[in-house]
Amino acid sequence: MGPATFARLPQIDEVSDVDVAVTGVPYDSAVTYRPGARFGPSHVRESSRLLRPYNPAQDVSPFSRQQVVDAGDIVANPFFLDEAAAQVETGARDLLERAGRLVTIGGDHAIALPLLRAMHAQHGPVAVVHFDAHLDTWDTYFGARNTHGTPFRRAQEEGLLDAEGCLHVGIRGPLYSGQDLIQDAALGFQVVTSDELDDIGTKGVIERIRARVEERPVYVSVDIDVLDPAFAPGTGTPEAGGMTSRELLRVLRGFADLALVGADVVEVSPAYDHAQVTGIAASHVIYELISAMAPRD
Amino acid sequence: MGPATFARLPQIDEVSDVDVAVTGVPYDSAVTYRPGARFGPSHVRESSRLLRPYNPAQDVSPFSRQQVVDAGDIVANPFFLDEAAAQVETGARDLLERAGRLVTIGGDHAIALPLLRAMHAQHGPVAVVHFDAHLDTWDTYFGARNTHGTPFRRAQEEGLLDAEGCLHVGIRGPLYSGQDLIQDAALGFQVVTSDELDDIGTKGVIERIRARVEERPVYVSVDIDVLDPAFAPGTGTPEAGGMTSRELLRVLRGFADLALVGADVVEVSPAYDHAQVTGIAASHVIYELISAMAPRD
Amino acid sequence: MGPATFARLPQIDEVSDVDVAVTGVPYDSAVTYRPGARFGPSHVRESSRLLRPYNPAQDVSPFSRQQVVDAGDIVANPFFLDEAAAQVETGARDLLERAGRLVTIGGDHAIALPLLRAMHAQHGPVAVVHFDAHLDTWDTYFGARNTHGTPFRRAQEEGLLDAEGCLHVGIRGPLYSGQDLIQDAALGFQVVTSDELDDIGTKGVIERIRARVEERPVYVSVDIDVLDPAFAPGTGTPEAGGMTSRELLRVLRGFADLALVGADVVEVSPAYDHAQVTGIAASHVIYELISAMAPRD
Amino acid sequence: MGPATFARLPQIDEVSDVDVAVTGVPYDSAVTYRPGARFGPSHVRESSRLLRPYNPAQDVSPFSRQQVVDAGDIVANPFFLDEAAAQVETGARDLLERAGRLVTIGGDHAIALPLLRAMHAQHGPVAVVHFDAHLDTWDTYFGARNTHGTPFRRAQEEGLLDAEGCLHVGIRGPLYSGQDLIQDAALGFQVVTSDELDDIGTKGVIERIRARVEERPVYVSVDIDVLDPAFAPGTGTPEAGGMTSRELLRVLRGFADLALVGADVVEVSPAYDHAQVTGIAASHVIYELISAMAPRD
Amino acid sequence: MGPATFARLPQIDEVSDVDVAVTGVPYDSAVTYRPGARFGPSHVRESSRLLRPYNPAQDVSPFSRQQVVDAGDIVANPFFLDEAAAQVETGARDLLERAGRLVTIGGDHAIALPLLRAMHAQHGPVAVVHFDAHLDTWDTYFGARNTHGTPFRRAQEEGLLDAEGCLHVGIRGPLYSGQDLIQDAALGFQVVTSDELDDIGTKGVIERIRARVEERPVYVSVDIDVLDPAFAPGTGTPEAGGMTSRELLRVLRGFADLALVGADVVEVSPAYDHAQVTGIAASHVIYELISAMAPRD
Amino acid sequence: MGPATFARLPQIDEVSDVDVAVTGVPYDSAVTYRPGARFGPSHVRESSRLLRPYNPAQDVSPFSRQQVVDAGDIVANPFFLDEAAAQVETGARDLLERAGRLVTIGGDHAIALPLLRAMHAQHGPVAVVHFDAHLDTWDTYFGARNTHGTPFRRAQEEGLLDAEGCLHVGIRGPLYSGQDLIQDAALGFQVVTSDELDDIGTKGVIERIRARVEERPVYVSVDIDVLDPAFAPGTGTPEAGGMTSRELLRVLRGFADLALVGADVVEVSPAYDHAQVTGIAASHVIYELISAMAPRD
Repeated sequence: MGPATFARLPQIDEVSDVDVAVTGVPYDSAVTYRPGARFGPSHVRESSRLLRPYNPAQDVSPFSRQQVVDAGDIVANPFFLDEAAAQVETGARDLLERAGRLVTIGGDHAIALPLLRAMHAQHGPVAVVHFDAHLDTWDTYFGARNTHGTPFRRAQEEGLLDAEGCLHVGIRGPLYSGQDLIQDAALGFQVVTSDELDDIGTKGVIERIRARVEERPVYVSVDIDVLDPAFAPGTGTPEAGGMTSRELLRVLRGFADLALVGADVVEVSPAYDHAQVTGIAASHVIYELISAMAPRD
Repeated sequence: MGPATFARLPQIDEVSDVDVAVTGVPYDSAVTYRPGARFGPSHVRESSRLLRPYNPAQDVSPFSRQQVVDAGDIVANPFFLDEAAAQVETGARDLLERAGRLVTIGGDHAIALPLLRAMHAQHGPVAVVHFDAHLDTWDTYFGARNTHGTPFRRAQEEGLLDAEGCLHVGIRGPLYSGQDLIQDAALGFQVVTSDELDDIGTKGVIERIRARVEERPVYVSVDIDVLDPAFAPGTGTPEAGGMTSRELLRVLRGFADLALVGADVVEVSPAYDHAQVTGIAASHVIYELISAMAPRD
Repeated sequence: MGPATFARLPQIDEVSDVDVAVTGVPYDSAVTYRPGARFGPSHVRESSRLLRPYNPAQDVSPFSRQQVVDAGDIVANPFFLDEAAAQVETGARDLLERAGRLVTIGGDHAIALPLLRAMHAQHGPVAVVHFDAHLDTWDTYFGARNTHGTPFRRAQEEGLLDAEGCLHVGIRGPLYSGQDLIQDAALGFQVVTSDELDDIGTKGVIERIRARVEERPVYVSVDIDVLDPAFAPGTGTPEAGGMTSRELLRVLRGFADLALVGADVVEVSPAYDHAQVTGIAASHVIYELISAMAPRD
Repeated sequence: MGPATFARLPQIDEVSDVDVAVTGVPYDSAVTYRPGARFGPSHVRESSRLLRPYNPAQDVSPFSRQQVVDAGDIVANPFFLDEAAAQVETGARDLLERAGRLVTIGGDHAIALPLLRAMHAQHGPVAVVHFDAHLDTWDTYFGARNTHGTPFRRAQEEGLLDAEGCLHVGIRGPLYSGQDLIQDAALGFQVVTSDELDDIGTKGVIERIRARVEERPVYVSVDIDVLDPAFAPGTGTPEAGGMTSRELLRVLRGFADLALVGADVVEVSPAYDHAQVTGIAASHVIYELISAMAPRD
Repeated sequence: MGPATFARLPQIDEVSDVDVAVTGVPYDSAVTYRPGARFGPSHVRESSRLLRPYNPAQDVSPFSRQQVVDAGDIVANPFFLDEAAAQVETGARDLLERAGRLVTIGGDHAIALPLLRAMHAQHGPVAVVHFDAHLDTWDTYFGARNTHGTPFRRAQEEGLLDAEGCLHVGIRGPLYSGQDLIQDAALGFQVVTSDELDDIGTKGVIERIRARVEERPVYVSVDIDVLDPAFAPGTGTPEAGGMTSRELLRVLRGFADLALVGADVVEVSPAYDHAQVTGIAASHVIYELISAMAPRD
Repeated sequence: MGPATFARLPQIDEVSDVDVAVTGVPYDSAVTYRPGARFGPSHVRESSRLLRPYNPAQDVSPFSRQQVVDAGDIVANPFFLDEAAAQVETGARDLLERAGRLVTIGGDHAIALPLLRAMHAQHGPVAVVHFDAHLDTWDTYFGARNTHGTPFRRAQEEGLLDAEGCLHVGIRGPLYSGQDLIQDAALGFQVVTSDELDDIGTKGVIERIRARVEERPVYVSVDIDVLDPAFAPGTGTPEAGGMTSRELLRVLRGFADLALVGADVVEVSPAYDHAQVTGIAASHVIYELISAMAPRD
């Protein structure tokens, strides 16, 4: 039991030096189908109670090799998309002044844009490894440019991305047109579809990712709908035919030697979850990401 | 089975003359707690399949004494509150040109403001009988003036209401301060709290309403959270201690001799519903309202 | 824990003399909306584990004043309505040769007809006290004469009922036409609507029932949808505005001096239940009925 | 939002020429365990809102290369199995006069027999590719010959099948006896069990299917319980150890060069679904089947 | 959003002087049926987010008239009942040294005994107003003397209670024997049954309570199963026929002039809750209790 | 339908000779996170209704090649861990006098220790094949030595295990420290992690198991959380990234030539299950284990 911080980590004000800050953004005003991701941060925290200090899969104790804290939530205005983006960016910048790395629990995927702005301010253009059923490189939706389907197009337009290092993993499901893929490729993204995963396996995916990002600073963005709805029912735009949680975790376990600068896990919508299946998967995803960030000897 | 119109009514394009149009507004961008009312219209329609043509409680056949149709949904931009309000108002005005009365399935309570604008354009100031756990006369929220907590303050400011005829029924639960009630009264609203209902009964409530609205044109706005969470779990801002559905339906059955000009039933959030308990309650509420609108000999 | 008999009662083969037999009919082929009542018997038994031997509300120990057993289930053919009816009648007649009284857990309401046939064979015409949202005196449905909406019309046509002693309690919701009520009255039924309950209270309902049935042999048929969906979400044709379980139980507690010959509790559909709310209500209804059957000094 | 047609397709009366008609059969009177598939068509339609026009997995725009419509539901008598079968057959024949191909959303699997009768009337004997946990070639159940466990035996007896081209995919779970498999083989069916899938992979399954059906006219019948209960909890007779939705979709993506004449997706039972997991899987299955039907250049 | 303290109150270490401390006891090892109340404290806190500062029903601002804090949880050993009791008592005594009054969120009802020990240490014998479906004055269960069915017998034996001032409210449901009531009365408890509530109303209940407790120091213990399962599905030993949340809240609103020294709200079991119906009811119960504790001018 | 024994098997008192007895232990007082496994036995039995007599995967009729019965439940004191252990051991010893083999449905994993004591009394040290996400070889928890996380350490200390033949399968998730693995290995256990399964496949796992247990008497202990939460949401300490039910069943199908002496399937917690997904998986696991125990010609 105890306070509902992520993995029972200390709160940010309880420690002096911070290596990794976990924060939440309870915001879902930019979704196009099922809302509810505003309750994602508290649900994922509540679902993280069983996480323990040693990660045998990566053979590392992620919380002792680095100071990890729960930094609470960044409040974002639910009624004005642009103001919300500014608030998330400010909140992220503030945290990045105190913590070397930031792991954010969404919230919907629109928060990736202001997070990338904050990342860019520190690291310059970053390679994005994007796990998702969807490309999220659409242009606008209902006239809005900052929705959960558009963050990576905006990010690329703003020069936040090192496009040579970006790729999507787990893409599947219907699109508006074949142009979606062409435009996405033009933005610089490579794609590893969910179907390809069957052919190349998790090891093949890791190789594809490593070959793509190389030594670049890497930002990992995980839309939980990259998992099949069986593994992540609690999300906003589910698509059949996704990854298993075992596959996703295994891929992330291969990230220890990447130059990770930050990450987000978004689109957990608890009203559609049951038995914390989605929340637990998301908390394990975050745990593997933090483990991969931990320094090795 | 058959097409999922409300109560299996014909679609608006299948008939020539229309007395009452039922429409949906799948919009929930103005909520402050649990979202999901965007799926309210389809859920209430799906939950209305068991409604039949004769209403013994009011001794009227609501669909044969007047032409009632399902007019489909009014699309509202989920990302810009003001544009959404304009779209709802336009959609409602268009329908009111074809139908004498409009019954709207929300969506969140913010849609009441544009609906009242459309009502006012036809009828001038209207008396509002407002069933809700909450006053919904707050001023702003996160700087936004058109949220689901503010429609009746805006409506009063715009002169849409005949304040002498307005009252809230079912109010309960904590407020920000005692000023909330004072400001609400200053706007002209009377209040029948949920507790008072215990003392005066449903007949007493009907009398209070009749004494208040008298001969005025009446708009009925039902936030489904006026019901106790046991009767309406599927809603966004539930408050314990509410009305039973038997009480609410019985009050509405006393409205046959009011000058009803329109109504809405809002804040049905299906992700929190189970076994269609909330959806069925909402569909019966609409059925009683349409029955009350039916002409008698 | 222990074997899943109703209220942990002995199985019928474990005792020699039987006063009251509880049986299940896992049959739902005659429903018109949500199916699932075939799982009613096992769900109600599972939900009856907390029942204990002494009933303070009736000041009686129902299981020590009379031998009550669980007689298991009567199997009915799910594919042929008439064969199913014959099987239920045969099963009930067999049990009535061993047990003075029979309490049946449905299954859908169509089973009331063969049960009344078996009752009539022993007792002649019986008074039926029928708790339900619906009249269940419709004529046919899809050409079928033995559905869950028709048992009491068939029973009356067959002379199974002492119509002077019959009444419905809890009726509410829309009908096909005003003729439904007229035809129902012509069959001899009185009606206490759900709305009337507000006016006369549970004591008034008991008086109405007593005045109606007098000294006649009484069969009690409880469609669990007489309860509001908040109290019985797990049922097939829910109607808003029903009785509370406290009201229903209190009415039944007034039956100790009626000449009860049998009872059924039908239409519990577990797939729509949650937290056993409906199952527990049904098990308490049965417990009060068995308590009312118990001899007093 | 908008009207709840499959994939927001036009209704059949809104277009003149039809290539593929999607219809629903809200019928579940022939099930042996959990009912509820009568609500399958509306649930699958509701779950298909996220489908979009371009299918990258098959590189085709299924709705622009052919005219696809939603033809509404075929009503079938829930109380008489044979009359229901006749109604489904008549409904299917009528639609096949207007549409080249028919894709049916069940309903339970008993509807496959009348659908195959209608197919046979147009195409003569067809090869059936049958995805299911169960053989569905039992003889009778409770004396009934047309249940959800018997359609393919009846179809073979009636000469509707080109047995040389038939096979089951995904079979698993206990049987009544070893004779079940022997009799099934005698009817001409080949079997690819769920376990074999592990060995030969989705590509191996596609090869097995192609080698079996060759150039024959092919009818695809998908019982959603071919998926593991994790991927399709909302079904009537779930068996552990099934396919993943990724596997099933991938197999279907290999059907573009088969001579598809029709398909059904049956046994979706929404009361047991959660978060639309089953409904979404079923809607994607239909989408892949319609995509495979689309003409290529 | 923000930290998940009860009603977003400050944590105990953030303030200097404390009038009322809210604490949780995540312990359910003493239950006899459904476990899960160990998650009650976090669930009730999560369900309390909508509580606001002003309580119109009591016309008081409970958090500004007195310093109220969230004191976090008291950890109790899940494996040894006696050690757990000692831990709860120690934790409560520690808090009572800092806070004048303690409001505890259970956890199961066994925690009432150590809480009463701590109360007694400060106030001497207290009057207990006990809302519950069950008497909780059984002697032992499975040989254990400190279970959730025995706290008030133990408390009386230890002299913790001023028996002249004790009463149960909401009692209903079957007992083991008529002796249960006789023994309970011998311990000094009066009983207001759920049925009596129908006759005397909430005002009558308040009068009964006031007449019983008079000027004595009062401890209020609310087992959430005093509510009907419709209003509190998320509990361990539900009994049909209970209070509505409106009735319970109204009774509590009459406690402002009682000499309240502490309170608990127990037996909230989230795994059986849905849409936070039980959690919200419990959070409102606590809110009314804290409001009643607030000093008036 | 019929009596709720496992797979509709006869009760133990209905037959004279018994080869395999299936028993339940409705006990969950030794869990550290989500309780509820006390309802596991009735839930798994209810979920086993679809099991049929012939197992094609193993080509055996498990109930005709050996007499299998349902022996009902062993009652264990929920309040005293040691007394409960003694009761389970006694119950198991009694059954082993009548039945050659025992298959136990938990209950939580703490019951494995007394079951192994009973096994040891008959067979001497046994090889344990342990499917689980967790090692369950911790030392103490809250000072208790017999919890659901400690049975195999205790068993080894007591000499109940033939450590040369023991291994864990499916291990994954965070640990307290790297020492956990070292101590576990020191106890004699080998580990096949969930990740390794991806590399060696189900056939590789079977080979690893066979090579380990050789001709030793084998006890199989299946914690249902070895499955991924998608396949077994209804459990107490879920960990993302687990086995699929297809994998687990396939491994068990390779056990026919092992010297199986007993088995348990534990940690099914129905309150977190939906649509019986977990219950069905557990019932199939038991079915495969009993099939593997059946003698071949």
